[in-house]
Amino acid sequence: MAGQGDVKLLGTGVSSFAVRVRMALHLKGVSYEYLEQDLFDKGELLLASNPVRKKVPVLIHAGRPVCESLAIVEYVDEVWANGVSLLPADPYARAVARFWAAYVDDKLSPAWIGILRAASEEDRAEKLDTALAVVGPMEDALAHCSGGKDYFAGDSVGYLDIALGCNLFWFEALREMFGVTVIDAGRTPRLAAWAERFVQTEAAKKAAPSMTSMVDCAGKLQSMWAAAK
Amino acid sequence: MAGQGDVKLLGTGVSSFAVRVRMALHLKGVSYEYLEQDLFDKGELLLASNPVRKKVPVLIHAGRPVCESLAIVEYVDEVWANGVSLLPADPYARAVARFWAAYVDDKLSPAWIGILRAASEEDRAEKLDTALAVVGPMEDALAHCSGGKDYFAGDSVGYLDIALGCNLFWFEALREMFGVTVIDAGRTPRLAAWAERFVQTEAAKKAAPSMTSMVDCAGKLQSMWAAAK
Repeated sequence: MAGQGDVKLLGTGVSSFAVRVRMALHLKGVSYEYLEQDLFDKGELLLASNPVRKKVPVLIHAGRPVCESLAIVEYVDEVWANGVSLLPADPYARAVARFWAAYVDDKLSPAWIGILRAASEEDRAEKLDTALAVVGPMEDALAHCSGGKDYFAGDSVGYLDIALGCNLFWFEALREMFGVTVIDAGRTPRLAAWAERFVQTEAAKKAAPSMTSMVDCAGKLQSMWAAAK
Repeated sequence: MAGQGDVKLLGTGVSSFAVRVRMALHLKGVSYEYLEQDLFDKGELLLASNPVRKKVPVLIHAGRPVCESLAIVEYVDEVWANGVSLLPADPYARAVARFWAAYVDDKLSPAWIGILRAASEEDRAEKLDTALAVVGPMEDALAHCSGGKDYFAGDSVGYLDIALGCNLFWFEALREMFGVTVIDAGRTPRLAAWAERFVQTEAAKKAAPSMTSMVDCAGKLQSMWAAAK
């Protein structure tokens, strides 16, 4: 495991953004202490470490907090610079990866959360259509970025693989709970094959939340959303 | 001016995100051809260059499009690596700058657009409160990032200065149109002093949209929003 001092990660097991950082730390071989947070009752360390956004994940490295999952992944890549690189070396490939990672967070995350949050079956079908429309362009992005290889980053998993891949567990939970399929082998065959490969990687298996924990969390969120109406 | 081939920028004069990229290109000394776009009637080059988001800015470098303003700024910093750096060199300072830039785009841009979009004076007053609450934490961020110097990046303008500073012209337009003040010398004196300095820099003056163009654009947007109700 790589050195560089004391590393803690504040996360929740089910947070796709925290899962993303756990994958990055695993890929870089960084050992860390994981501190599970309760987002329904936020603790002092989380509030003190990320007072502005009050969100997980937070990486605390040598006592200093780093927030926002994509910024954390870039930080991890830069500090533990030996060995595998998460971002591509070429500036154009880096820019393309950053574009798609921002797309995942701006468009795809709200889309799948919309499916979870839907108030009726009809609403859920509409939200699934939105999610499918958002996922669609990533089929060509995979072909373009990977150059026909197994992952967005080429022969092995990198920045954009984990940026998108951290959402796959929730796609599986949506299938389990509602019978919906976000990455469908018929519509997006390359992406579906990529997803099958990705969830079998060590980095994915180490960070994967359990189905039970996601279904439990979904129930809590749905109660909270219903109460807020 | 730095070389590195043919550079075009697709933008609109009033887009804060396009202004951000123009500032970056100016700071790096990159010469470019500027191609003004009409967002109310998008042209073929824009749609072909950014088919997924269909937005400005797009930087076209040696025929290849780069999209998303923050990704473009990082690309410009990496490709034209000689001379001034926009991002700090230290990984922790880079992560802090990226955190705040994401905060500006996730929270501050929607907040000021909310003021513009408000349907009544009461609504506008509420949206101003939201914007003030969003701006508040950046007062301490400025002290922390700058180390007491003039800019977020220290002695001269950098990544976070332009990430925030590209919004200042619209704050001035909101003051002109509605008499509201987003960065107020009473509430956030450090930020107010920074803003005064920033708009006097060459990079800001070169990229600044005219008040007339912003007021015209605001009128078009307000008509569009009213029609969509």
